[in-house]
Amino acid sequence: MECNGDRIKRDLDFVNAHTTTPGQGITRLTWSPEYMAAYDYVIQEMKKIGAQVTICRAGCIRGRLAGSDPDKPAVMSGSHIDTVIKGGQFDGTVGTFAALEAARIIVQEKVSHSHPIDIVVFPEEEGSRFGIGLGASSAWTGGIELEKLFTAQDPEGVSYREAMEAAGVVVEDDSLLQSEKIKNMLEIHIEQSIVLDKEGLSIGVIESIAGLRWFNMVIEGTANHAGGTPMAYRNDAFQGAVRIIAEAENLATNKMGPHTVCTCGFVNIEPGSANVIPGRAEMIFDMRDSDMDNLTRLPRQLEAFAGEVCRERGLGLEMKERITVPAVAIKPYLSEMLLEKAKGRGIKAKGMMSGALHDSCKLADLTDIGMIFVPSVDGRSHCPEEWTEWEDIKLGADILLDAIIELSK
Amino acid sequence: MECNGDRIKRDLDFVNAHTTTPGQGITRLTWSPEYMAAYDYVIQEMKKIGAQVTICRAGCIRGRLAGSDPDKPAVMSGSHIDTVIKGGQFDGTVGTFAALEAARIIVQEKVSHSHPIDIVVFPEEEGSRFGIGLGASSAWTGGIELEKLFTAQDPEGVSYREAMEAAGVVVEDDSLLQSEKIKNMLEIHIEQSIVLDKEGLSIGVIESIAGLRWFNMVIEGTANHAGGTPMAYRNDAFQGAVRIIAEAENLATNKMGPHTVCTCGFVNIEPGSANVIPGRAEMIFDMRDSDMDNLTRLPRQLEAFAGEVCRERGLGLEMKERITVPAVAIKPYLSEMLLEKAKGRGIKAKGMMSGALHDSCKLADLTDIGMIFVPSVDGRSHCPEEWTEWEDIKLGADILLDAIIELSK
Repeated sequence: MECNGDRIKRDLDFVNAHTTTPGQGITRLTWSPEYMAAYDYVIQEMKKIGAQVTICRAGCIRGRLAGSDPDKPAVMSGSHIDTVIKGGQFDGTVGTFAALEAARIIVQEKVSHSHPIDIVVFPEEEGSRFGIGLGASSAWTGGIELEKLFTAQDPEGVSYREAMEAAGVVVEDDSLLQSEKIKNMLEIHIEQSIVLDKEGLSIGVIESIAGLRWFNMVIEGTANHAGGTPMAYRNDAFQGAVRIIAEAENLATNKMGPHTVCTCGFVNIEPGSANVIPGRAEMIFDMRDSDMDNLTRLPRQLEAFAGEVCRERGLGLEMKERITVPAVAIKPYLSEMLLEKAKGRGIKAKGMMSGALHDSCKLADLTDIGMIFVPSVDGRSHCPEEWTEWEDIKLGADILLDAIIELSK
Repeated sequence: MECNGDRIKRDLDFVNAHTTTPGQGITRLTWSPEYMAAYDYVIQEMKKIGAQVTICRAGCIRGRLAGSDPDKPAVMSGSHIDTVIKGGQFDGTVGTFAALEAARIIVQEKVSHSHPIDIVVFPEEEGSRFGIGLGASSAWTGGIELEKLFTAQDPEGVSYREAMEAAGVVVEDDSLLQSEKIKNMLEIHIEQSIVLDKEGLSIGVIESIAGLRWFNMVIEGTANHAGGTPMAYRNDAFQGAVRIIAEAENLATNKMGPHTVCTCGFVNIEPGSANVIPGRAEMIFDMRDSDMDNLTRLPRQLEAFAGEVCRERGLGLEMKERITVPAVAIKPYLSEMLLEKAKGRGIKAKGMMSGALHDSCKLADLTDIGMIFVPSVDGRSHCPEEWTEWEDIKLGADILLDAIIELSK
């Protein structure tokens, strides 16, 4: 039994014809006419296979294949169909339509299942219209107050609620998702990075989802004339900063765990003129790991190193936590099962950490989740060049199909 | 024989009452009503001591004390009275009024001199209104075409020529300065850096004026998701850049000459988001030294180091020269004489390099120049906090007086 890869491609081609930026990637912002074309398409395709479609809290779609035992919790799978501005064809759509395709096969092949099978779509995953990433999945799972999402406005001042109502979407079940009514959540997503592509693999199985910590660091020195100040008399904030930024890479690469990553992707120096010694440097450090212990040790060690650099150089130092998002645990039975299913189909798969968050992470508060990654060519995503081979998408859908069948038995 | 420090203070207090930003530092842009108040004041003060005042090319003021031999070349001294926006009280004004005070004493004490003594004021030194730094001194010495200065516009679109004419300034002698008509140019200026203040000295004598080279460096890497990209798979442009910036400091401090300075005061990383690995980093390196050989070796060694870093890290590198300004030589007889005059008055003075350019540097194309620095407290300048002790200004003026008397004998 296998999925029909051509059918998934037709699904994606249909919804990706709906973009407000044709020729410049896919722009399908939540509740826009383009979004609604994709939204209605998903609903129609669900109905075609006899799924009972319900518009749930925050506009989430649930298409249910009833199981033989209505009291059992559902096996859920899905993703999102909204995009970033000028994004790619595969981000979210792969997970949505792979789940739909698996459901089609289950219906078509009359696979018996005692658990309900729910195909789900979460609006506003990207946060690109209303500024709240994982917006609807957070609201449905109780991670945020519904009102917070409903009152969030787009750049034109239109609220989520207004936009949803204007699009004609009527919520039929406004209740929060209940932990006891979900057995599992499974999601396929494109990797959006380069590991699978670099290693020539078609499938990654997520064993952990990284926690995240952001720190702001400010180095204070003395701004002075670049010409008139001898090297020995400088308190150059940026020269202190560059040593700390280099050490951040060294610590993450050599002193922490195998999955630790640390990035300095933002820097601002003042006054920022070529002929003035920087008097102030501000950086943000993004640190991620599935092992939160490393995310405790790493900032401590970085701050200690920074303290030494600043003492030696007569600089001020301030390091402040901005965000901490805990790591999400994946139950080994699920990742092991997904790896097993891949093996059963002769596919070499890799157990890996996800550095990014997806809707499933919000579901992890309620149920055991499993995630499958398919490769992003050259690691590119959130851009028109985003690409995943159709063959890899089909392989991912096959593994998902196998997993849904086993879990919903 | 000594200068009257109180009189210099009164001069500065008078002109500094004329600012468009009272309470927020001194703003006296060339040809503004505030500038003209100071300009007219200088002319009146020159006339009071019997100087023959001529408005020269580009609006420069020359106040001449005739010498006993009218064929001999002039000993010139002066500076500027324009400021940056919200600048300080001492930048330019010290050099202008110390020269005027020296002339007053020479007249008052009936010191005989065979050479003419010229007190000069150069408009638009800062370039803060018309964007051409050392504007009038460049035009008067032939360093730039007069038309270039005349057509330069302020942010409101008013040209230098229009503004000068509107201020009622009429040029009486439009000729270029002639090398054979100037014996020397002497200028006192505030240091605008921290060397004299740190070392507790009142006087610096400039032995060399640094040459300047600016280089743009661009490092190209690959922008990727900060969460999904393991450390081993990164081509982080900024991580390459920080090692090169650190090495720039190391080279200037340890591998070049005693006066070499190198600054990275500008950096831009792209995309500049905390959660994206930088794909591009751009820096400007400002390098200065009185020894141009070091300014040949330093960028070569930095580029070689950068090349290695980029090869190891799979990054692209481009380094481009933006500006080269040659060093200005100071004749030893002049710096030695100024040090001697300081010693004669019991003042401990330091021979030093000037890292910045002043109007005198333009005069160096035509004549031998000498410069005296007085301390800037905490090195601060171009800001309301700019401060120089009145006592130090008076000591500088005394040395200038001694030097003018000797050179104009």
